[in-house]
Amino acid sequence: MPIVSTLRWENQTLVLLDQTKLPAEEVYLVCCDYRTVADAIRRLVVRGAPAIGVAAAFGVVLGAVEAVRQRLDPPSALERVFSVLAGTRPTAVNLFWALDRMRKVAEAQQGETSERLVAALEAEALRLYQEDIEANRRLSEHGAALLADGMTVLTICNAGALATVAHGTALGVIRAAVRTGKRIRVVACETRPLLQGARLTTWELMKEGIPATLITDNMAGYVMQQGRVQAVLTGADRIAANGDVVNKIGTYTLAVLAQAHGIPFYVAAPRSTMDLTLADGQSIPIEERTADEITTFGGRRVAPNGVQVYNPAFDLTPARLVTAIVTEAGLLRPEQGRFKLREEGAV
Amino acid sequence: MPIVSTLRWENQTLVLLDQTKLPAEEVYLVCCDYRTVADAIRRLVVRGAPAIGVAAAFGVVLGAVEAVRQRLDPPSALERVFSVLAGTRPTAVNLFWALDRMRKVAEAQQGETSERLVAALEAEALRLYQEDIEANRRLSEHGAALLADGMTVLTICNAGALATVAHGTALGVIRAAVRTGKRIRVVACETRPLLQGARLTTWELMKEGIPATLITDNMAGYVMQQGRVQAVLTGADRIAANGDVVNKIGTYTLAVLAQAHGIPFYVAAPRSTMDLTLADGQSIPIEERTADEITTFGGRRVAPNGVQVYNPAFDLTPARLVTAIVTEAGLLRPEQGRFKLREEGAV
Repeated sequence: MPIVSTLRWENQTLVLLDQTKLPAEEVYLVCCDYRTVADAIRRLVVRGAPAIGVAAAFGVVLGAVEAVRQRLDPPSALERVFSVLAGTRPTAVNLFWALDRMRKVAEAQQGETSERLVAALEAEALRLYQEDIEANRRLSEHGAALLADGMTVLTICNAGALATVAHGTALGVIRAAVRTGKRIRVVACETRPLLQGARLTTWELMKEGIPATLITDNMAGYVMQQGRVQAVLTGADRIAANGDVVNKIGTYTLAVLAQAHGIPFYVAAPRSTMDLTLADGQSIPIEERTADEITTFGGRRVAPNGVQVYNPAFDLTPARLVTAIVTEAGLLRPEQGRFKLREEGAV
Repeated sequence: MPIVSTLRWENQTLVLLDQTKLPAEEVYLVCCDYRTVADAIRRLVVRGAPAIGVAAAFGVVLGAVEAVRQRLDPPSALERVFSVLAGTRPTAVNLFWALDRMRKVAEAQQGETSERLVAALEAEALRLYQEDIEANRRLSEHGAALLADGMTVLTICNAGALATVAHGTALGVIRAAVRTGKRIRVVACETRPLLQGARLTTWELMKEGIPATLITDNMAGYVMQQGRVQAVLTGADRIAANGDVVNKIGTYTLAVLAQAHGIPFYVAAPRSTMDLTLADGQSIPIEERTADEITTFGGRRVAPNGVQVYNPAFDLTPARLVTAIVTEAGLLRPEQGRFKLREEGAV
C-alpha cells in the first residue's frame, strides 16, 4: 500500500491529491473533464515531471470520452484536447512525451469505432501509469547503491511519491536505500517560492519515519561547509542528450556548491524525462511564473507594491557538474564532462 | 533629509522604525526604557549590525536615567543594563563594541554626580550615532569606485539605511555610485527566512528610484549563469582580523557562486563591524533562531507539525572568497587570500 496516492484513475475520473493544500489538508480533486486536468497541472494541484505526464494522459482519455458523448469528430476534438494539455507547462518533457504516446494511439485507431478509440486511449494511459511505477521502482534500486549507511543527503523541491505515480525519483532512491537497512538522513531545502520542500518532502519523509531536517535554500552552502551533507540528490524536469539537467530553480546553485565542497551531485529521473531531440540543455524552455508567487504569501503581501520580480521556475545544470544520473536502466556517469545518453541505453 | 528614519533620539526616548511591519506599515516604536530597547533588538524591530550597536548605546542611556530616577547605585544598576543588552543577539560585534564604548564612559564618570553620568552617556551615544552616519557616508564614497556605469549588483538581506543610522553600507555604496551619475541596477535576494531583501531592500531602493529586481535566494546561481549580475555586494555582521566575514545566512553561498562565475564579491562595513580580537572567523558565534521563522508564515503553518528545522541566522565567508572590503578608511584587498586589517588601517 503506497503511503501517498498522488493520482488514481477511478470510475472514469482522475482523482488528484491536491498538493497546493498540503501539508495542512489532505484533500482530493476529482477531474471529470480534460479542462479540469489542464487547470490542475497549471495550478500545481499535481506537479512533478513524471506525475504531470501521467495526469495529462488521463486528461486525453477524458477528452476522448467527452468528444464521443458530444458526438464530435474525434480527430479534431482530440486536437483541441492535446493542444490545451500541452499548453499547461513548458519545461518538463514528460508532459509532451506522454501526449505523444497518446497521440500515436489515437492515430492508430483512425477509422475504428469511438468505443475502441476510448478503450485504446484508456489502456495506454494505464500503461503509462504502470510504467512510471515500475521505472521509479527500478531506478530507486539502482540509485540506492550510491548512498552509504550513515549518509546525509541534501535534496531540493519534491522528487518523491508526490511527483510521480509512486516511489518517487530522488526520494525513491532514499527509500530504497533505507529499505536495505542503511541509515540515511535528509536535509530538505524548503524550495522557494512555492515551498515544495517544506510542504511536501518533509511530509512524505515524516510519514515513513525517515529523518529529515528542513532548511531555507540559502543555508545549503553553509551546511556543506560544515560537513553536514555527503551527497546532493535531485530529480529532473528535462535532461538533454549530453546530460544537461533542467530542474527546479535552485538546483544549479546546489550543483555549484556541491562541486566547491567535493560532494557528489546525483540526478534521479526516468527515461520519460530525457529529451534526446536536444543535443544540450540551452534550448530547453524555462517556465517563468507570476510575480505574486514571490511577493505574496498566503494572500499577505511581503514585498512593496509595484516591485519588479524575476521568477524562473527552473534552471539549467550543465552535465559537467553532474556526478551520475540514476535511471531505470542503471547508473550513468559522464565521460569528459558529458553524458552520452543514447549510447548508454538510457532510452 | 534622509529617506528613512531608522532610529532617532527624541525627548530622551529612542524612536525606532518598526522593521517587522515593513513594507505594509510604517510605524514607530517609542522606547522609554532599556528593556524595550533590548526586546526591540531581539525581535528585529531594529536590525542590521551598525543600527543595533547605536540602539543599544541609547538603551544604556535609558538604563542610566532609570537607575538615577529610582535612586539605585549606578554601577550595579548599569551592570544589569549592559548584561541585558549584550544578551540580545550574539553575532554582530557592533553591539558589543558600542556597549564597550559606553562602559568606558561610565567607568570614567565614577564618583561624579548622576547628572554628569547621564549627560556623559548621552553624549557618547550621540557620538556613536554621528560616527555611524559619517562612517557609512565615507565608506559609501570609497566603495562607489568599485561600481561601473551600467552594472547590475546582487545583494542579500538589507545592508541599507535601515541597517544603519543613515546611508547604509552595501546600499550606501550603491547610492553613492548612483549619485555620481552611474546607472546601477540591483538584484535583491529575498533573504529567507525573514525576507529582509523582499521587505526592506526593495522598499528602500524604490523610495529613491534605484531599479531593483526581487528574486528568491535560490535563483542567485541562475542569474549569475545568465550573466545578469556583474558584482555581489553585501554588508557584514562581524569581520575577523584575517578578513573572514560573518553575515546573513546565504552570504557564503553567494561568495562561492561569485567565484565560480568570475564575479567580484565585495563586503561593505564600518570599523565597528571588525573584531580584531579574533584571528579568523571560526570562533564567531552564529546565532540560531527559532524553528517557527521557517515553519510558519504570517501565522500560517507551511511545514508539517513536528518537523525538525535548522535555522542559523548567519554564515561564515572565508577571506579567500572576498575580493575587497569597503571601509571608511578605504578599500582593502587581500594578500594571499587573507586581509591584514590591523596593518591596513581599517581600525
